[in-house]
Amino acid sequence: MPSSGPVEAKRSPGERLGRCYRRPVTGTADPALLLSRRAQGATSSTIRDILVHASAPGVISLAGGIPAPSSFPMAELRAAALAALEGGTDAVQYGRTDGDPACRAALAGWTDAQVEPEDLVVTTGSQQGLDLVSRVLVDDGDPVVVGDPDYLGSLQALRSHGAQLTAIPVDGDGLRTDVLAERLAAGLRPKLAYVVTNFHNPTGATLSTERRVHLAELAERYGFVVVEDDPYGELWFDAPPPGPVGPGSEHVVRLRSVSKTVAPGLRLGWMAGPRWLLDAVIVAKQSSDLHTSSLSQGVVTALAQDPAWRAAHLDRSRALYRERRDGLVDALHQTFGDAAPFTVPGGGMFVWTRFEGFDATARLLDAVAAGVAYVPGSAFGVDAPDHSAMRLSFATASVDELHEAVRRLHAVVTA
Amino acid sequence: MPSSGPVEAKRSPGERLGRCYRRPVTGTADPALLLSRRAQGATSSTIRDILVHASAPGVISLAGGIPAPSSFPMAELRAAALAALEGGTDAVQYGRTDGDPACRAALAGWTDAQVEPEDLVVTTGSQQGLDLVSRVLVDDGDPVVVGDPDYLGSLQALRSHGAQLTAIPVDGDGLRTDVLAERLAAGLRPKLAYVVTNFHNPTGATLSTERRVHLAELAERYGFVVVEDDPYGELWFDAPPPGPVGPGSEHVVRLRSVSKTVAPGLRLGWMAGPRWLLDAVIVAKQSSDLHTSSLSQGVVTALAQDPAWRAAHLDRSRALYRERRDGLVDALHQTFGDAAPFTVPGGGMFVWTRFEGFDATARLLDAVAAGVAYVPGSAFGVDAPDHSAMRLSFATASVDELHEAVRRLHAVVTA
Repeated sequence: MPSSGPVEAKRSPGERLGRCYRRPVTGTADPALLLSRRAQGATSSTIRDILVHASAPGVISLAGGIPAPSSFPMAELRAAALAALEGGTDAVQYGRTDGDPACRAALAGWTDAQVEPEDLVVTTGSQQGLDLVSRVLVDDGDPVVVGDPDYLGSLQALRSHGAQLTAIPVDGDGLRTDVLAERLAAGLRPKLAYVVTNFHNPTGATLSTERRVHLAELAERYGFVVVEDDPYGELWFDAPPPGPVGPGSEHVVRLRSVSKTVAPGLRLGWMAGPRWLLDAVIVAKQSSDLHTSSLSQGVVTALAQDPAWRAAHLDRSRALYRERRDGLVDALHQTFGDAAPFTVPGGGMFVWTRFEGFDATARLLDAVAAGVAYVPGSAFGVDAPDHSAMRLSFATASVDELHEAVRRLHAVVTA
Repeated sequence: MPSSGPVEAKRSPGERLGRCYRRPVTGTADPALLLSRRAQGATSSTIRDILVHASAPGVISLAGGIPAPSSFPMAELRAAALAALEGGTDAVQYGRTDGDPACRAALAGWTDAQVEPEDLVVTTGSQQGLDLVSRVLVDDGDPVVVGDPDYLGSLQALRSHGAQLTAIPVDGDGLRTDVLAERLAAGLRPKLAYVVTNFHNPTGATLSTERRVHLAELAERYGFVVVEDDPYGELWFDAPPPGPVGPGSEHVVRLRSVSKTVAPGLRLGWMAGPRWLLDAVIVAKQSSDLHTSSLSQGVVTALAQDPAWRAAHLDRSRALYRERRDGLVDALHQTFGDAAPFTVPGGGMFVWTRFEGFDATARLLDAVAAGVAYVPGSAFGVDAPDHSAMRLSFATASVDELHEAVRRLHAVVTA
């Protein structure tokens, strides 16, 4: 990031940053003074800065939020790309902003709730889904509810649109809707509440059925939108997660993605929600990138032609990640016992744990030196970051590597 | 678009829209009231609404801004997709926000100005390039300079970030920098000036060398950023256009795209500019879509391995569009003579003309009924739309179709 400096404040209040602007009559000594207030306040992702260390040779990284490369169906992707490109020039021509109808039909078939293709918008990953929803709902300073802790990429996107984040605690059953209800009763009036409902990033928690019902009720009663971000729901290991929040509600939008179940580099996600919201999202998407890659849409459409393959592929991915989840859980139990409390995640990619008295933020570089990387819990904190917490991903390491990583972690934590 | 209604105004002044908000203590009768001010003000693209009519059977459409499908190198795209997917799982894994280094190196080689790969950011089309530049520069209400007329998609993106557009006339030599200089001397202090320098959409005009130098000088003197949008520069028919605006300037960013020279459905563009601006753009892009499709980047990287193919492909595309440009120009001259004044475009896809006394906006549906479609000039207007003007694209119709389209247009104009 460029160094921050005084910013234009004539027409834009800027009280939030508390800065004032004096533009020279002619010339700017430092062109970075031209940056918008939000750009001056934005910071790069801590996770991404850390990944630079995590990729050093010999380091076992439990830091990344990326899927196992071995889960990517490379042969099927090659066949799908060929099929898409052999289908004609539409595969690489400009397309509709809301997505190619064939692709939307395919994605409707990949959606567990009953959704018509017309009620879907294809997005450039679910990250864009959240960005667009934020863009069309959030005015500068609007209150927005998030979990504490919560996915950093979403906190960044929400903040970049001027959201004032209100963090509600997350426990083993997900977002504490009882605490949210208290805050609402006390006067909180959010534009939206952002919730990763299944196998939450970073805590691994799944929102209970009761809380889903409660959350949808609160959204209707107090007039806000629930943004249900669900990239991990299909990666369940023990039993499928509960159904979506408030199916059919005018106050719920659901973000989905092929990033964890096919491949993230396609940058293809989708959004299912009420018409009033999708219409605004489509207009915003037209300005953002016109439409999502036609080639990626063609690949997904081709893959969807074989539902049996998809079912088998999901089974293989679940088995792969289940084995690794078990490996990490066993290693943590064996090595740390009660010293590392955590909720066993029923799916997804993450275990969230904490070591009393250990400063996971300050000691990250020691851990990397000892050959293991994690993401400090503080990276996901909103109000009061928990410096003793950490997120451990079991997605990309083998079971043997997971055991070795936990041994290295033990050496650092007990040093 | 949802119907507009009262909007949240507690923390967000909203004077510009002159609305006030009363949120019920509990419940919202109409959830669309939750939309942000900008989302409530945004409208869909008129061009896109018109394209619905233009695709009716029997209609020769000169309305679209899309490239000729016959220019897409389908065989090479198939080979490139296979090569990318055979190169390993990185082709579909998460990647760097600024773009894969191999892809950036390829794009640096496709950039006529001297640019290092580090000084490029890969974007999801050049539409995203403009969106990101707007996002990091424009605060609500900031003045921004555009051409009059100018590309609608860019006007939309700029407005969606709260830009107050100041339109500077465009003539046969592009943006009137003398008029801009007068406005600046009179006190105008824009954050940025947006200019399609080569074969402008919609007018077809190319900014003269003298005006390029003048524009860069003005940007330095008055402290604003020139956003040089150049999707058409390589599609020259008679002679290459002048070099980029202010090469190496800290105040100029250049947007490029493969949309018109390879295929738009890849959604791949790039941005070359000063470090202070790229760093802010990368942070904003992380929130927007994490990164551009790895598959699209892999395809472009593979295509770049054969520079001789690219040179030959560009030659074929130039020949294709040159023949069509000549066809449309000849047809207009033969059919209308002096009644349809226009500047012959030296490249690109568009002829901009006007028929005195003809209301191109009001008569569009008559034209479609007569079997020809165009985009009314009013769609590109900022302050005082020119209702007698129209944009005619010669990109997708054959020479015979172009002649027939002009005959039909004559029937409508003289009816």
